[in-house]
Formats: sequence, C-alpha cells, structure tokens
Amino acid sequence: MDTPVVLFRDGDGKARALVDRCPHRNAPLSLGRVNADGNLECGYHGWRFDGAGECAAVPGLLTGEANASARTAEHFATHESDGFVWIWGEANADPGGQRPFELPALEPNMVEVVFDYDLDCTMHAAIENALDVPHTAFLHRGIFRGGSKAPTKPITAERHDLEGGVEVQYLGEPVGMGPIQLGKKTNLTFDHWDRFFLPSVAQVEYRVDGWLRITNSILHLPMSAFRTRAWFVVRFWTKAPPSVVKPIVLARGKQILKQDAFMLKAQTENTKQFGGERYTSTDLDLLGNAIWRLLRLAEKGEVVDVDLPPRQVSFRV
Amino acid sequence: MDTPVVLFRDGDGKARALVDRCPHRNAPLSLGRVNADGNLECGYHGWRFDGAGECAAVPGLLTGEANASARTAEHFATHESDGFVWIWGEANADPGGQRPFELPALEPNMVEVVFDYDLDCTMHAAIENALDVPHTAFLHRGIFRGGSKAPTKPITAERHDLEGGVEVQYLGEPVGMGPIQLGKKTNLTFDHWDRFFLPSVAQVEYRVDGWLRITNSILHLPMSAFRTRAWFVVRFWTKAPPSVVKPIVLARGKQILKQDAFMLKAQTENTKQFGGERYTSTDLDLLGNAIWRLLRLAEKGEVVDVDLPPRQVSFRV
Amino acid sequence: MDTPVVLFRDGDGKARALVDRCPHRNAPLSLGRVNADGNLECGYHGWRFDGAGECAAVPGLLTGEANASARTAEHFATHESDGFVWIWGEANADPGGQRPFELPALEPNMVEVVFDYDLDCTMHAAIENALDVPHTAFLHRGIFRGGSKAPTKPITAERHDLEGGVEVQYLGEPVGMGPIQLGKKTNLTFDHWDRFFLPSVAQVEYRVDGWLRITNSILHLPMSAFRTRAWFVVRFWTKAPPSVVKPIVLARGKQILKQDAFMLKAQTENTKQFGGERYTSTDLDLLGNAIWRLLRLAEKGEVVDVDLPPRQVSFRV
Repeated sequence: MDTPVVLFRDGDGKARALVDRCPHRNAPLSLGRVNADGNLECGYHGWRFDGAGECAAVPGLLTGEANASARTAEHFATHESDGFVWIWGEANADPGGQRPFELPALEPNMVEVVFDYDLDCTMHAAIENALDVPHTAFLHRGIFRGGSKAPTKPITAERHDLEGGVEVQYLGEPVGMGPIQLGKKTNLTFDHWDRFFLPSVAQVEYRVDGWLRITNSILHLPMSAFRTRAWFVVRFWTKAPPSVVKPIVLARGKQILKQDAFMLKAQTENTKQFGGERYTSTDLDLLGNAIWRLLRLAEKGEVVDVDLPPRQVSFRV
Repeated sequence: MDTPVVLFRDGDGKARALVDRCPHRNAPLSLGRVNADGNLECGYHGWRFDGAGECAAVPGLLTGEANASARTAEHFATHESDGFVWIWGEANADPGGQRPFELPALEPNMVEVVFDYDLDCTMHAAIENALDVPHTAFLHRGIFRGGSKAPTKPITAERHDLEGGVEVQYLGEPVGMGPIQLGKKTNLTFDHWDRFFLPSVAQVEYRVDGWLRITNSILHLPMSAFRTRAWFVVRFWTKAPPSVVKPIVLARGKQILKQDAFMLKAQTENTKQFGGERYTSTDLDLLGNAIWRLLRLAEKGEVVDVDLPPRQVSFRV
Repeated sequence: MDTPVVLFRDGDGKARALVDRCPHRNAPLSLGRVNADGNLECGYHGWRFDGAGECAAVPGLLTGEANASARTAEHFATHESDGFVWIWGEANADPGGQRPFELPALEPNMVEVVFDYDLDCTMHAAIENALDVPHTAFLHRGIFRGGSKAPTKPITAERHDLEGGVEVQYLGEPVGMGPIQLGKKTNLTFDHWDRFFLPSVAQVEYRVDGWLRITNSILHLPMSAFRTRAWFVVRFWTKAPPSVVKPIVLARGKQILKQDAFMLKAQTENTKQFGGERYTSTDLDLLGNAIWRLLRLAEKGEVVDVDLPPRQVSFRV
C-alpha cells in the first residue's frame, strides 16, 4: 500500500524488512548493499542498519552516538514459510503468536506450480475475480466454461462461515473444462470449494475422486490502491502423469489470467474515470460482498468474528 | 466531457448510446458484443442490456428479477443524420422535439469531403480558432493568408445575431489564398461568413459568384476539458472539376489543420502551466467572446436568447 | 520554478526576458520570431513585443491603442556576464545596483570547462550533494574517494560565515582521487573549500601549491520543485599540460555527476512516495542545514544577514 519495503538477510540468514528509506537523506536503502556483518548499508552516505532498523554505524563520524533514536529505520516483523517471506503490516510492531496463512500440505505424490502476476486493480477486485464462477463462461468463453453446445445445468452453492474467512461449496457441478464437458453426458461432478482467508488469500479447490485433486492458493499483496501482486501456488495430484499435466496447468492458467488481467485493468480505468466503484449485485455474487465486509473490518483493525449467515443459491453453469 | 459512451445498433438497426459502464462490476460495456437479439452483452459476466439501458438478462440467475431498476445502465437519446449519430447531452432525458444542427444541403452538383481530427485544447479554443481570421496571416503564413508582397487591404466585418448562434460577415475581402492573391489586382472579392451554432458547430462559408461556393461545417465533441474531437464536413461547388479540386481541399485543409493543432496544443500547455486562461482581446476578436458567452449560458442550461448587439469593425488582411 | 521564460536579443543585441505567454491568447512567445526591428512576434496572431514587454503592434488592427496596458507581457531584468544571462527573479522589478554572482577570474594560464546537466531533485538537494564530502566514499566508491586499502585519516572541517553565503574549509585532507591516494603515504594535503552563495551557487575549490588549482562553480536554476538545471563552470590550472588534464576533468566529472543524478532522482522519488523530506543529520552534515536556512530566508525575501556560528568538526575520509 504505497510503502516501499527493502528485504535482506542478516548475518544469521534471517529475512529482514525495513521501510525502504534511509532516515538520513531519504535515499532508498534497496540501492545499497549488505555488508559482511549482515547490516544493510545505504548506497548514498554508507549509513548501516541492522535487521531491527537500528543505525549500527555512520561512516567517518567521530562524535555523537551512531544509534541515536532519530537514526532508526522503521522495521517490519517477518515470517518465512513455503518460500514466502510474510511481513507484519504494522511497522515496529510485534505480531505476538500470530502466524500467517498456511498453504495446504504438499503431499509426497503432489506437484507444485508457482507463478506471480501483477494486476492493475484493487485487491478486492482481484480476490473477487479469482473466486467468481459466473464470469468464467463469458470472459473465458470456450476456455474455462461456456462454449459447449450442451445446455447449462443448475447447480447449488452453499456459503459457510470460516474462522477469519468465508467459503462457498458448489454441489452438482458437471466435470469439464471449456469445450470438454464430460459431466453433461456422464453426470460426473466436481467437489468444488472457493475460499477467502484474511488478510489476502483466495483459494480454489477441485476434487474428482480417483482422478484429480487440485488447490490453487493465491496470495495477494496490495502494492497500491489499484495495483495488486498475486502469487499463484498450485498444488495438485492427478491420475495422469505430472510431466503431462504440469505444462497444461501452467499454460492454461496463464491464458485465463491474461484475460482476467485485461478485464480487471479495464474495470479499474472505468472506476477511476467515473470517480469510484458503484456495484450492483445479485444472488450470483455470493462471495464479493462478504469479502468486502471482512476486508473493511480488518482494515479498521477490528477483531474479525463475523457470523456470516449460511446461504444457499441455485444457478446455471 | 469525461463520460465514456458505448454506441451500438439494436435489433431494428437504430443507433443506441449507453454510459460505458456495466452497473454490475463497472466493466466497460464497449468490451462486450451485440447479441443476435440486438442487446448489448457485457464481456465480463454477460449481463445484457437493451437500447434503453434496461437489463434484459443476468445469465445463470434463477432468482430475482433481471430488470431490477438498480441494474439499469444510463442511456442517451440519439438522432442520426448525414452519417452522424448525435447524442443528447443529458442521460435518461428526452430531447422532445429538439433536433441537432442541420448541415447545409448537399446539392446535386456539390462534392463532399469529410475528415476528423483530435485537438488538444478546450472546445472554445478550437471553435474560436476555426472562425478566427487574423491568425491565418501568421500561423499559416504563405499558405492561407500572408506571404504576399502586395500591401494588405482594409476590410469590414459585421457581426449579426443568429438564433442560438452568431455570425460575422466580411465585406471587401480580396480573392486569394496564400501567395495567389487575385483580389489585390482585380478587386474581385469573396462573400465570406463565419458562424457559430450551439452547442458546438463552427461554420465557414465562402462564395465567388460563378466560380466557387464552399461551406465547411465543423462539428465538435468535447471529450474532456482539454481534448476536442472535430469533424470537418466540407461541401463545395467550383467551376473547376471536382476531381481536381477535392484532393487540393483535403491536402490544404489538413496542412492548415496540423499547424492549428500544434499551436492549440502549445496554448493548452501554457494554460495548464499558468493555472488558467487569461485572455486580452481587441476589436479583431470579433467572435471569441460571443462564443464564450453563449457556451457558458448553454452550460448552465439557460434558454439562450442572447441579443448580441450588431457590431462593425474594420481591419487589414 | 514553473514559470516559462522566453529569451531574445533586441535591436541593440541586449538579452531580453519575457514571461513565455502572449497576453492575447496565451500562446508561448518562444514559438514566434524576432522581427527586423528587434521585437518579438507571437507565432499565433503576430502581436509584437519589445524588450520591456510592451505591445508594439497588433497586426491588422485599425482601432484602439496597440500598447494598451492589458497587452503588456511581463518582463524580467537581465544581466549578462561570462556567457551567462542572469534574470532577476521578480517580474517587472528593478534589481537596482545588485549584481549576480561573479565567477572567479579566469587567469591567463587557466583552462575552462563548461557543461550543464538536468537533475531530477530540489535545488537544495542538488546543492547539498555538490558540497557534501562524506557521500563521495560510498556513492562514488573507488572513483572519487573510498576504494583505497589504506585506512581513512581524520580531517578537520571549519565552517565560516560569508556575506550571503557560507563556507567550509577542510584541513589535513590527504591528496588523492579514488585508488590513487598520494596523501596517505606522503602526508601531502589539499587546501579545500566548499562554498554556497545565494541564490543558487555551489563552489568547490582545491589547491595543492605548485601542482594544482581548480574551482568548480555550479550555477543552479530551479526549473520546478523537483527539477534543477546545473551549469558547471570549471576553471583550473595544473602543472600537467591542459591538453592532457582537460579531457580527464570532463570525463571524470560527468561520470561522478551521473552517479549523483541517479541517486538524487531516487531520493526525489522516495520523497514524493513518502509525502515529503524527513531528514536526520549528524555533525557530518556541516553545510546542508545552513544552506536550507539561507534558502528559506531568501525565499521569503528577507534581508539575509545570518550570523552562522563558526563550527569545527573532525571526521574520517
């Protein structure tokens, strides 16, 4: 959210995060270098900072204390897991025992695909888009849903409360993707869940017993009001060999994502042009408003213990 | 004026205009497509709108009314004539019996040239420039006026009130263009009128009995405060064959226009740099202030029944 | 400071400066031309202005006075010396007997190198950077200072008040540049002064008796809040022949300047990103705060008779 952060590893290899501005003359610390002692040295005048942002040295200075408090850079608490460095959103604060979101276990027979993508939209718009079913038949017509000559089928969606999140389960969704619609002929259905976890995780899970199990956990970083970075962590098992499935998942995923990114950018431009979002929703927008409400409460720092009423909706896909 | 509009033809072929924003998630409707039933389908979730902006369908939705009033897109009344679609400036409003500007008749022996050009300036600046005589000897030196070694001649300009507009008639203007100045030797003069019609039309008419009759009607669309699109509709008759005259009109017109566009853009940049227009005028600026006054009154929605006093001015060209 | 100025020579060859906006329709006068009579003619409608900004002619106008006061363009007093045109900062004002900064004399055996560079930073940041010693060991590591294996030596800096300025003298600075550090072995030292003169001049002087004498006077023009043009006027004498030294001075100077420009731009971007400068200083920042104070007083138009207390600081280079 418009606060540049510099990341580096200290002498112990621990990931560290400071506000990316030297307190001396406001140069970006990310233009500096990490010294042999694991401190971060500013590239302009060489001030050095430890992982907690304390000024360890002002080169050449013979008078005064190097670690005077005004020379301290703001720092963020960090937590590293699954190859991601999470930072606590509030500077100079201790998260206590709180831990960030945990990815679903990568079981021995599973395969992982990770990629990231920058989206020109609000974090809310990105998350709603990731978890929205109805748009897939139009924006991704013929690739994901839609494009089949078989008639659409009614399915049921149930919304449940989660701790710090919300989930929708879909019942009766025919198995298929784009033109290949096995389910409409065979009555084979997906087990399918869409989930949102605070502060910024969207998760889509599909299962077909004996054939497929796939979880796409999307970690979002709001870089500014209308710019969001998303990391897609896809973990899956299929009956088919991974060497065949992996490139398909990656190629298809990016193709769909490119269409989403195009539309989200157009949505953002319109939002700016018209001076703000003015949304109208129907029963099909099962998650959007719940995510909005959770994000706004979290933003205010309120304890999020929302009792979302369970809802059940029928629609056609 | 910063309101994007999507245009499409409905099932009857009638031109339709909606605000280019889907009420659902604010995607631009112009990224969608027109269905077989003549409704406009949003490219994001497939909502469909008729020509009056009413929501005809929300795909997949099994509950609730599709045409709930909150799902209605704003529309503009349209009128089509001479190959132009005019839209009424106020959304969801009925122009009653009011009709847009009518182009002068294209008589059987006349030829038409149409082109458009985007100008980086206010609509007022574009219209004043189109109807201004004195600048032609400097900005277009040697092309339009100026550049002749013959001395300039005094001419007389008379300003008259028009219904919803204003006109200046020039008397005694020697026939010529750039270096070719027949009038200064022969005393042959143009009949010449410059006219402005609300809301946005500039018109220049020249006649030389038995030789030439030309009307350039310029239709302006204010796309934003400092961006104006202009359509030039030139209808003319000359003694010389149209196949000779038409390419000259087009080439010379665009050459002059390019110089105007360059200067208007520089004027705009200066206006922004200095925080606004601060104009000084002389008797030579016969139309600029009158156009300004008419535009400001129209902007406020006032009935424009201005009695501009007739004026007569002499100057040299 | 965001006021475009047009410069031209009048009929007497005297440099003249007007605000670059025609009072008529606000076109930039710099797009016009100088007439045979030494007046500046606007390129749009041909209005002509003399060096004091008075309107000498409105072409074609047969009525009214050409030099009506509303038609006057604002002008700035000018002073030309050493190939520079200085303009007085206040429009339509007389500087009285006040003269701009004088460059140090170019003695017969001295050589001059002049170049200019546009910096994306405030004028204060540019001047502080030009006169700052400690950053040279980091930003210019191995080129200017730093990069030597010999240990740094403590030197002493003394700050003195100047009329309309401030000076720091360095004592005991070992002779060297980058990896070539003669001084650390030989105890040969520079005579070195850094100076600031209102309104916008930074000056660096080095001397080594019998070997070297160099003055770099940097004249700054604040083009806007975060854009500063700097003219470097380097006048020097060395024992080595000028044909050898001159290309080295130029190449090395521009190499260092490029690094400074890169860091100053990064500093500016951070300043904007974080909503303003928030600086912390130590005893090493001997000039920055004094320059800041002098600039702020001058900005308010106060008579600058600041009694900066003399200061003495030791540090290592």
